[in-house]
Amino acid sequence: MATTEFTPLEWREDGLALLDQTRLPGEETWLRPKRVEEVCDAIRRLAVRGAPAIGVAAAYGLVVALGDPDDPQGDLDARFGRAAELLLATRPTAVNLRWALEQGAEAWGLLHDLPRERAIAGLLDWARALHADDVERNRLMAEQGATLFAPGDRALTHCNAGALATGGIGTAVGVLGAAFRRGRLAQVWVDETRPLLQGARLTAWEMRRLGIPHRVVTDSMVGALMSRGLVDRVVVGSDRIAANGDVANKIGTYTVAVLAQRHGVPFYVAAPLSTVDPRTPTGADIPIEERASEEVTRLAGVRTAPEGSEGFNLAFDVTPAELVTAIVTEAGVHRPPYGPALARALGGPAGD
Amino acid sequence: MATTEFTPLEWREDGLALLDQTRLPGEETWLRPKRVEEVCDAIRRLAVRGAPAIGVAAAYGLVVALGDPDDPQGDLDARFGRAAELLLATRPTAVNLRWALEQGAEAWGLLHDLPRERAIAGLLDWARALHADDVERNRLMAEQGATLFAPGDRALTHCNAGALATGGIGTAVGVLGAAFRRGRLAQVWVDETRPLLQGARLTAWEMRRLGIPHRVVTDSMVGALMSRGLVDRVVVGSDRIAANGDVANKIGTYTVAVLAQRHGVPFYVAAPLSTVDPRTPTGADIPIEERASEEVTRLAGVRTAPEGSEGFNLAFDVTPAELVTAIVTEAGVHRPPYGPALARALGGPAGD
Repeated sequence: MATTEFTPLEWREDGLALLDQTRLPGEETWLRPKRVEEVCDAIRRLAVRGAPAIGVAAAYGLVVALGDPDDPQGDLDARFGRAAELLLATRPTAVNLRWALEQGAEAWGLLHDLPRERAIAGLLDWARALHADDVERNRLMAEQGATLFAPGDRALTHCNAGALATGGIGTAVGVLGAAFRRGRLAQVWVDETRPLLQGARLTAWEMRRLGIPHRVVTDSMVGALMSRGLVDRVVVGSDRIAANGDVANKIGTYTVAVLAQRHGVPFYVAAPLSTVDPRTPTGADIPIEERASEEVTRLAGVRTAPEGSEGFNLAFDVTPAELVTAIVTEAGVHRPPYGPALARALGGPAGD
Repeated sequence: MATTEFTPLEWREDGLALLDQTRLPGEETWLRPKRVEEVCDAIRRLAVRGAPAIGVAAAYGLVVALGDPDDPQGDLDARFGRAAELLLATRPTAVNLRWALEQGAEAWGLLHDLPRERAIAGLLDWARALHADDVERNRLMAEQGATLFAPGDRALTHCNAGALATGGIGTAVGVLGAAFRRGRLAQVWVDETRPLLQGARLTAWEMRRLGIPHRVVTDSMVGALMSRGLVDRVVVGSDRIAANGDVANKIGTYTVAVLAQRHGVPFYVAAPLSTVDPRTPTGADIPIEERASEEVTRLAGVRTAPEGSEGFNLAFDVTPAELVTAIVTEAGVHRPPYGPALARALGGPAGD
């Protein structure tokens, strides 16, 4: 992990370690799951979150499952299959989860006939390689994305698509960091990203680590910032990009994109190709997770709405491709029309 | 106050009573200010808020100043002048404050030569009349606005423009209540309205009192709701309407208006004519209050962003007239072009 100064998940000598992001920025607590159910729980309650990081956590989660201390001699194939099912069911929108599990199934197909310990060690090597691969994708994306910036730029990002959301330096935040190091970024507007405040809690924390000047605003302030000419670019991550370039990302992203279009502010999406799902034709086909009402009607444990008033809580929204100025992947900066551009990048047929 | 079941401020036998709205919905605490400085403090820290309510509170605040217990024989003219200055300086955006103080100065000009007790009693009568007038304006607005709705409508409102924000049944919420009673409203989407959560805390509380089905959403969810076709109309209040129809209202209103235009959702503003300022030509001339950074970086006393990360906190934004489908006042439903329409309603020249 030499290319990143920080990672929210790592495999240590004694197993997996996950930073509990629900406790940030107040506390730095590491979870040490020994069973796949504990990995699933960490993903579901967003202790580990961000599409690429979920993919890496799922890969390590398969290894955790094989070494389950409750059943040291259990059948590995059965255990692998069950773990993959449990992990896949944790969250529906981020496609990197499915992608990692499918890669894992391929790897396991080549390993499962080996002696027990060698098979498990082989799957760990595979998971580590997938993690290292994510680090490298982040680095390439950051290089590509930074070219889009100009000195003095004030950029806005939504939610957290940084080191905490990935295995490496992040997607959107990786781009911001590279732009900053090259003198092409003056300031970042961090919108807080209700309901779970990944912007205020996590992106602001990363901005401080990276030394990037930043201000935190409410999600509702983005329109006013743009109408005052205070935002030069927007860059966000993604949980799934459909084959046509429609982008699912944290709730509120669509609103930012609509405002950016009105104000002529370029709107970029930075995501690894593992986020692009050729099997999802358009944004309408992306399953959108609905989470507990209480995430909206409570904050930091405090009830904000009256008892009896229910919330409605979509975790993601879909930004249509027409609002996206460019998609940055490890393969380069892709411009519309995204159908053929993404197909080319994925190495498939270049049709629409 | 027979036309409203609830008022957040009232003059009782022993003086002014203000509901401390910062404690809602958890606690119903009434403030009993005896000095104008206490009234100013209540306005500044939003214990009383909402443009029309601020106007009524300022009117009563002048009466409080005249009866200051620390100086029962002090010069009334000097005290009136100082109180008007202090009150005017509390908040810059809501023009109803200036409007009420100017009306008060006119009334005082006719009263100040009377014997001391009669002059003070006269100003109280004036303040009570201004309050009753606000109640009546609310009622007329609700009647007018309800005609814009149709059975089955799902409406969205931002911030709180209800009984808590006015002397009567509210502006936007008054319209919603009237539409509901006529069977023209099925559900209200209440956006929480960060940073101070007037939607989640106050509008949801009012929806429960009025028995209107509602769901609370984060501000960032409005785009997703509209893109799913779940919002039929938007209605909001205003803190100042410029002569050309540009509308200042709680931060986030502009964003909702931009989304409404994209999705073809009618966007209505409900406000008394005292909110329309013929001396403010356009939205660019409206002073926008910037409030403490901590309102953004903390919530319910809990720090959300890391220590050292600063917030930026505009309390209002400006929605250009082109995004406003109709403005509802006590004088009727006004349509674009708003310059002549509002001038006619105010009884001035009908020029642009």
